[in-house]
Amino acid sequence: MSTPEPLTNNQGLHVVHLFCHTTDSLDRDEVKTAFDAAVAAGVQVVSVAMLGAKADICFMLLAEDLWDLRRFQTNIQSAGLLVSESYVSVTEVSEYASKMPAEMIKDRLNPVLPPEGLRAFCFYPMSKSRGDVHNWYSLTYEAREGLMRQHGESGRKFRGRILQVVTGSTGLDDWEWGVSLFGAHVDDLKECVYTMRFDAGSTLYGEFGAFYTGVVGSLDEVLDATTF
Amino acid sequence: MSTPEPLTNNQGLHVVHLFCHTTDSLDRDEVKTAFDAAVAAGVQVVSVAMLGAKADICFMLLAEDLWDLRRFQTNIQSAGLLVSESYVSVTEVSEYASKMPAEMIKDRLNPVLPPEGLRAFCFYPMSKSRGDVHNWYSLTYEAREGLMRQHGESGRKFRGRILQVVTGSTGLDDWEWGVSLFGAHVDDLKECVYTMRFDAGSTLYGEFGAFYTGVVGSLDEVLDATTF
Amino acid sequence: MSTPEPLTNNQGLHVVHLFCHTTDSLDRDEVKTAFDAAVAAGVQVVSVAMLGAKADICFMLLAEDLWDLRRFQTNIQSAGLLVSESYVSVTEVSEYASKMPAEMIKDRLNPVLPPEGLRAFCFYPMSKSRGDVHNWYSLTYEAREGLMRQHGESGRKFRGRILQVVTGSTGLDDWEWGVSLFGAHVDDLKECVYTMRFDAGSTLYGEFGAFYTGVVGSLDEVLDATTF
Amino acid sequence: MSTPEPLTNNQGLHVVHLFCHTTDSLDRDEVKTAFDAAVAAGVQVVSVAMLGAKADICFMLLAEDLWDLRRFQTNIQSAGLLVSESYVSVTEVSEYASKMPAEMIKDRLNPVLPPEGLRAFCFYPMSKSRGDVHNWYSLTYEAREGLMRQHGESGRKFRGRILQVVTGSTGLDDWEWGVSLFGAHVDDLKECVYTMRFDAGSTLYGEFGAFYTGVVGSLDEVLDATTF
Amino acid sequence: MSTPEPLTNNQGLHVVHLFCHTTDSLDRDEVKTAFDAAVAAGVQVVSVAMLGAKADICFMLLAEDLWDLRRFQTNIQSAGLLVSESYVSVTEVSEYASKMPAEMIKDRLNPVLPPEGLRAFCFYPMSKSRGDVHNWYSLTYEAREGLMRQHGESGRKFRGRILQVVTGSTGLDDWEWGVSLFGAHVDDLKECVYTMRFDAGSTLYGEFGAFYTGVVGSLDEVLDATTF
Repeated sequence: MSTPEPLTNNQGLHVVHLFCHTTDSLDRDEVKTAFDAAVAAGVQVVSVAMLGAKADICFMLLAEDLWDLRRFQTNIQSAGLLVSESYVSVTEVSEYASKMPAEMIKDRLNPVLPPEGLRAFCFYPMSKSRGDVHNWYSLTYEAREGLMRQHGESGRKFRGRILQVVTGSTGLDDWEWGVSLFGAHVDDLKECVYTMRFDAGSTLYGEFGAFYTGVVGSLDEVLDATTF
Repeated sequence: MSTPEPLTNNQGLHVVHLFCHTTDSLDRDEVKTAFDAAVAAGVQVVSVAMLGAKADICFMLLAEDLWDLRRFQTNIQSAGLLVSESYVSVTEVSEYASKMPAEMIKDRLNPVLPPEGLRAFCFYPMSKSRGDVHNWYSLTYEAREGLMRQHGESGRKFRGRILQVVTGSTGLDDWEWGVSLFGAHVDDLKECVYTMRFDAGSTLYGEFGAFYTGVVGSLDEVLDATTF
Repeated sequence: MSTPEPLTNNQGLHVVHLFCHTTDSLDRDEVKTAFDAAVAAGVQVVSVAMLGAKADICFMLLAEDLWDLRRFQTNIQSAGLLVSESYVSVTEVSEYASKMPAEMIKDRLNPVLPPEGLRAFCFYPMSKSRGDVHNWYSLTYEAREGLMRQHGESGRKFRGRILQVVTGSTGLDDWEWGVSLFGAHVDDLKECVYTMRFDAGSTLYGEFGAFYTGVVGSLDEVLDATTF
Repeated sequence: MSTPEPLTNNQGLHVVHLFCHTTDSLDRDEVKTAFDAAVAAGVQVVSVAMLGAKADICFMLLAEDLWDLRRFQTNIQSAGLLVSESYVSVTEVSEYASKMPAEMIKDRLNPVLPPEGLRAFCFYPMSKSRGDVHNWYSLTYEAREGLMRQHGESGRKFRGRILQVVTGSTGLDDWEWGVSLFGAHVDDLKECVYTMRFDAGSTLYGEFGAFYTGVVGSLDEVLDATTF
Repeated sequence: MSTPEPLTNNQGLHVVHLFCHTTDSLDRDEVKTAFDAAVAAGVQVVSVAMLGAKADICFMLLAEDLWDLRRFQTNIQSAGLLVSESYVSVTEVSEYASKMPAEMIKDRLNPVLPPEGLRAFCFYPMSKSRGDVHNWYSLTYEAREGLMRQHGESGRKFRGRILQVVTGSTGLDDWEWGVSLFGAHVDDLKECVYTMRFDAGSTLYGEFGAFYTGVVGSLDEVLDATTF
């Protein structure tokens, strides 16, 4: 078995969301072994019981070394999970947030997940529009910064009920950012995203991909609820 | 078997539409057991025989606890149904209807389904447009409220022939709302949706996803008509 | 076996196009039994040998009771046909044709298919655009009626070479109408659709989905040509 | 075995491109038998080893009787080829070329393929745009004819290096034309399509579907290169 | 076994990216044999462990003879890899770079891959827009050349951290160019693509397809990390 040199980021963590379907050949013990091996290697693993046809289980992983993410993926495939969809990103501090205190920047680059008590989960990817009329990338920094600040204020009303983790994926996956929301209730997730849709930055410049919804649980809770 | 803490909404019910294909390994008795277990847990289950390639059977479920929906999904997967497509939403009272009498609000949050005598069924998801020219989210509340009122009056002409259940899915699934129509006849469904397409709110701002059509029946009727 | 109450339309017939792929487990006799049972129940069944990857066989069915269509679908699935795509609609008399003589209206609601001698077949779904510049549903009735009349005259030049059957699907399937063309030759189909694309109603307001092409035959001819 | 009456065009040939994947159950001898039977029936069959995930093998067929194309398709499916994608069209003389000498018209309706020495192959479907600003079908005949003439001149620079076969598919498949290019080298194909993209007819009105690339060979060469 | 005449380009190499999924029947030794045979034939093979559902392994191949690429594809299919997606292109010197020194032109047509020390990998296809407002192909050569020069300067800031290989695919695959980036770190890839999105040539005229991310390794490293 080769052990290639780790591949790390300049700063922050690699992130991958793996949306999986169960199969007839699923080996629960092997899933647990894969989970334990990842955790032992320092990888954060959030396990989510998903609802509907898109996936049965989602694993959101954060790791320093990209190879650790790939090994986990291979191990759960070996255990009989089918990785049907995914999202690849990295933790980041956006250009608009770069003047935050060092401690906050560190927290953004190294979030500790899942947050306690916020078990309702959704994920969606998004980009900023480059349309004929509304083109985010044609705006000045000041205009963009102003729209982002307004958006942040709008989101802040949900503090305590919603934790938002935005990871960057320009060049890495099909959209420019991945958004993972952790909420107290599923209708908190809905209210938060609906409310923010009226922010000018979203109304005029936000483009959204597919939305995935589920409930965070321990690995046992998730496997109990999704496998047979 | 772990029994995780229930995940409920602040108000209203979790809703999921599961569009299923039958498979060679289908166990009808196991489907019935899943159905009975859900009903026993207080979940409402509408069973629909679907027409065409999109699905053979649709189950529309409404429940207080999200875990109950996930358990039903797992149980019918175990029984040999393939969940091919789905829609995740919650019951809601829209901002334009928030001044309704308390009793009507309660009915919206807790609809009793299926309605008697309205067996023709269709489901479709929809969003309000955020285009360069027509952007719903750029309108004032008053403008939106006026368009919604006109739309409601248009729909009211179908009272008795059509029951419309609109559930909210912003942040939860790929469109902003799911619409479930129950009609006396299939051509009532068509006439209703066609008529409302001339309402300004639909003409200029309505965006629609896929449409699914079938006929509501008892679980036995649905299984008799779709399995072999 | 339950026999649910029939589900009929207020007027006209239910229509479904089932686009099927053959499989290794195909039982030709069972397909014939399904066909005969549907015909015995009063269902019209047009069988078409399709060309290319979209489907091997198309069945276009017209029936009073929706359950009869579902039973046919289940029976051919049991016989080993895979229903890969489909289209759900109803026969209708458009608002622009409502002043036709009663006999013609009756013929539109109850077409007799397939037409003799017109074996070249294509099907495509279509909608009227609701774009920023050209929005069909923003036009006055008179403007729409004028465009439809011109379109009808354009189509009339193909009388005898082409029979056009337009069925309504707003609210029932992903497009607003399904168009089934029966022609003397495949290049008649092409010339007809190409010619009509220059009608203002199509040029500015027509949106088209996928096109499916084949040749109508007896069930035996179709099965002989597509199965092995 | 029924032998249905042939279905021919008013003028010209039926054309189908069958894009196939090999499977584990492939029977090479049966593919050859299908090929020989088609040739014996007067069908032209071009065999192409394709590159990449879209297909392993492409067969481009031209025939007088549509049933012959369907029989070939069924025979190669029986031989274990999976027809994954396809394109249905007919040979045609465009309205802009209708004043060509009779001999040239005959050659367009009855091309002899594959051309010798031009083994690099690509296929793509295309339509003329009906957008809000640039709508081909709103142009006068003279304007369209002028753009087509310029396009023809641009293409003529590749004479000897590229043979272009444009077949008509309005009403028959998802785009309005299918374009089959045969070139001396793959980079000739690229240079030709790239160059023509600057013609106003393409720049403003050309819409293109998927592109398929491969190399023409004898049936043995193609099977040797793609099967195992 | 037939050995067809080689198919080479007028200048430069054929390129194909094969995105593969592992299967239960994977034979690692046969993959290695395919790899060694290609290398022995003078083909460059870059092997990449991919992350997420799009692919487990990517092989980027560059060869003089198109048949060598097809043979490699067939050999890994025989070995049990499923080629799920792909991209077909050729090395090229863009019209804007044609005045480069001969040595640089030769390097562009014959890149030596993978670059040492740049293991973070992403691939994406792109086209230049032909929209109603912003149409790249309507611009003068000078305007296009100016935008490309600015884009090149923007990219040059990443020299040493990123190697960009742009290959041409107009007429060969669904987009006009394929972009392969090799970086020191995954967040270098992200920063590079994000930064260049603000270049006018990208902001107004760039259209992007799917993005694929992974890590370059030796064949053994890649197989160890992705197979079981």
